[in-house]
Amino acid sequence: MSKANLFYAQSGGVTAVINASACGVIETARKYPERIGTVFAGRNGIIGALSEELIDTGLESAETIAALRHTPAGAFGSCRYKLKSYRENTREYDRLLEVFQAHDIRYFLYNGGGDSQDTANKIAQLSIEQGFPITCIGVPKTVDNDLPVTDNCPGFGSVAKYVAVSIREAGLDVASMCESSTRVFVMEVMGRHAGWIAGAAGLASEAAGDPPHVILFPEVIFDRDRFLDKVRGCVEEHGYCAIVVSEGVKGPDGKFLSEAGGADAFGHTQLGGVAPLIAELVKRELGYKYHWAVADYLQRAARHIASATDVEQAYAVGKAAVEFAMAGKNAVMPAIVRGSGPEYSWSIGEAPLADVANVEKKMPGGYISEDGFNITEAARRYFAPLIRGEDYPPYREGMPQYARLQRTLVKKKLADWAG
Amino acid sequence: MSKANLFYAQSGGVTAVINASACGVIETARKYPERIGTVFAGRNGIIGALSEELIDTGLESAETIAALRHTPAGAFGSCRYKLKSYRENTREYDRLLEVFQAHDIRYFLYNGGGDSQDTANKIAQLSIEQGFPITCIGVPKTVDNDLPVTDNCPGFGSVAKYVAVSIREAGLDVASMCESSTRVFVMEVMGRHAGWIAGAAGLASEAAGDPPHVILFPEVIFDRDRFLDKVRGCVEEHGYCAIVVSEGVKGPDGKFLSEAGGADAFGHTQLGGVAPLIAELVKRELGYKYHWAVADYLQRAARHIASATDVEQAYAVGKAAVEFAMAGKNAVMPAIVRGSGPEYSWSIGEAPLADVANVEKKMPGGYISEDGFNITEAARRYFAPLIRGEDYPPYREGMPQYARLQRTLVKKKLADWAG
Repeated sequence: MSKANLFYAQSGGVTAVINASACGVIETARKYPERIGTVFAGRNGIIGALSEELIDTGLESAETIAALRHTPAGAFGSCRYKLKSYRENTREYDRLLEVFQAHDIRYFLYNGGGDSQDTANKIAQLSIEQGFPITCIGVPKTVDNDLPVTDNCPGFGSVAKYVAVSIREAGLDVASMCESSTRVFVMEVMGRHAGWIAGAAGLASEAAGDPPHVILFPEVIFDRDRFLDKVRGCVEEHGYCAIVVSEGVKGPDGKFLSEAGGADAFGHTQLGGVAPLIAELVKRELGYKYHWAVADYLQRAARHIASATDVEQAYAVGKAAVEFAMAGKNAVMPAIVRGSGPEYSWSIGEAPLADVANVEKKMPGGYISEDGFNITEAARRYFAPLIRGEDYPPYREGMPQYARLQRTLVKKKLADWAG
Repeated sequence: MSKANLFYAQSGGVTAVINASACGVIETARKYPERIGTVFAGRNGIIGALSEELIDTGLESAETIAALRHTPAGAFGSCRYKLKSYRENTREYDRLLEVFQAHDIRYFLYNGGGDSQDTANKIAQLSIEQGFPITCIGVPKTVDNDLPVTDNCPGFGSVAKYVAVSIREAGLDVASMCESSTRVFVMEVMGRHAGWIAGAAGLASEAAGDPPHVILFPEVIFDRDRFLDKVRGCVEEHGYCAIVVSEGVKGPDGKFLSEAGGADAFGHTQLGGVAPLIAELVKRELGYKYHWAVADYLQRAARHIASATDVEQAYAVGKAAVEFAMAGKNAVMPAIVRGSGPEYSWSIGEAPLADVANVEKKMPGGYISEDGFNITEAARRYFAPLIRGEDYPPYREGMPQYARLQRTLVKKKLADWAG
């Protein structure tokens, strides 16, 4: 097989470990010098391909590439940009293929969620139809943990660890002070449509009475009175109540409790700020002093407290994606497969992009306790191994040292892209 | 000198390392079995002394006490409860002395901020006047870093590290996505009257263009137009703008930009939620998409990312407090003294409580850059050593393992305290 270049792009919301996948891709590609020429990375994801802004990762040292493994966020830039269907916007697909052809790119590795896997799948098909076949391999990534087929998604385990550690720590804080000060603490976490992240916070509770005492899931319609009863009972029993609320919690009208207004480029409503609403409701109805926190990007960028399991898996899917391409596979995504034994184990399997694209994996109903305010033992068994192990970045003078890339763009060969 | 018991209490807002001070107190006291009998800890701080709820720390194993060193929040409970002046509430002071006498307590170690050092100082004086002299030693603690005499306050270094690490990580996140998504990120941090914490976040910036790009200090009156100009310029130059805002930022009218209403037991206004206000202002006036985070208790409870320097100092002031008492000192507080050499060094000095009580140390004017939006090199030299070193708690199954105490109360000897 002849030699060709590889294009790697990061897509959608970044995570604490997406660069570990990039590290896996680039380090593995460098092991195939006879078959892979340059590894290009899209500046700001797929937008970089459209605008022919291709970062030459070959100019980054081995040390810098290795440092990607412990660097959060998207080192090459990511974007929220969903390609329309081929029928709706033929020009975009044609442009991508034109750029790939101009730079002899015959491998396309797309690191993202469901939308991105859909795009990768379309490009695989189209490129064959157009006579310039591109090997398209998906690399799973999303803190939302909502990709099908794969047991879990790289990025999720580290957010899970962050929220569980944070509510354990903040819970101890509230417990210390509750008799004379704050009674109720509300921590808002991400999870637009599914309670995976909120549920993982439940891992903080190892013994009866441990925080969090209440979890509000997007899957459970918010029932004001039942919630207030639960909080009151909790304060009466434990002296305080630590609450984790998903940004995606909906009221009986089916609308998000809090909508910041506006919508992102994928058409999703931008959320934020349900924690203060919940806290104020508690204060108004029950009179308890409250505090609230909204972790927002802190949770998904928190490489300092990443799950070692998550880092390993993120690297592994990047590595496997290149190996899949080298093995002649196409339109597939490495998936994490959980072993069936009593001890947690995992391996890398293979998922057709067609099975992954645009399918949102919901949290199983059996993961939410009967009263709707906590997780079950089944959920605990699922979540627990995903946060295992610590993988600390290197520090200098007390600060984590993250990769600084040159991000040198290769010379353009085509006319500017008007968008 | 005859043997007597020791009473230790935690006061005010807890920190990631106040239990390290408790650990220092208890481990050191256990080295003086001929002179110190039982170490009692107040259940919920000084309230525990008033209500005669004394935790017998002698019933906690050496392992549990050692684990306090890596356990955040107040293991014995803290409180926001400021004793009134002796003239205003003679009964409270009489009650304290009655409880101390009933339990043969002749050492009182009070772990808190300025209010607490004031209380300890008063009790030292009163107990002499009343013929039952109590050795009163303060143990410094406050994330606000506002105690005088001591170079810095245990608790501050860990919050400083948390906020600097968090804005570095979230800054990378925003930088990754800014061309197609969020342009402005606002992180709210604690610091009611002084910008110590907000300023420390500035350590995240090691090279030109690094986040945070804007810091809003309580010391600098918020100037809407200058702020908006700064943000616009930053987005135009870097593509994004990462902002750290202190909860204590005030407008031209001298009022906090955000007031959640209500007041805590010390009479301070309860704050929170200035980040969304700032973010919405930016959106409204400049049109940039934003995200915001409010770390709230997460920042001061974050033992998982504590500063090793802070942990060592917190332990050292606890240890020194007992040693001061054993050396016959009274009405003093161990203070952290910074060495004058080019390399950071510190030692424990001695501050009279009278010099510490009720004095609020402001951040030097020379720590804020001329434009009011950043820190100076002088500030950087002051802050940098305080966040040095990592001191990770032990983990099991991916979660930090914090001390679980029995907190057994000793039998009461007095009539109930009606308050």
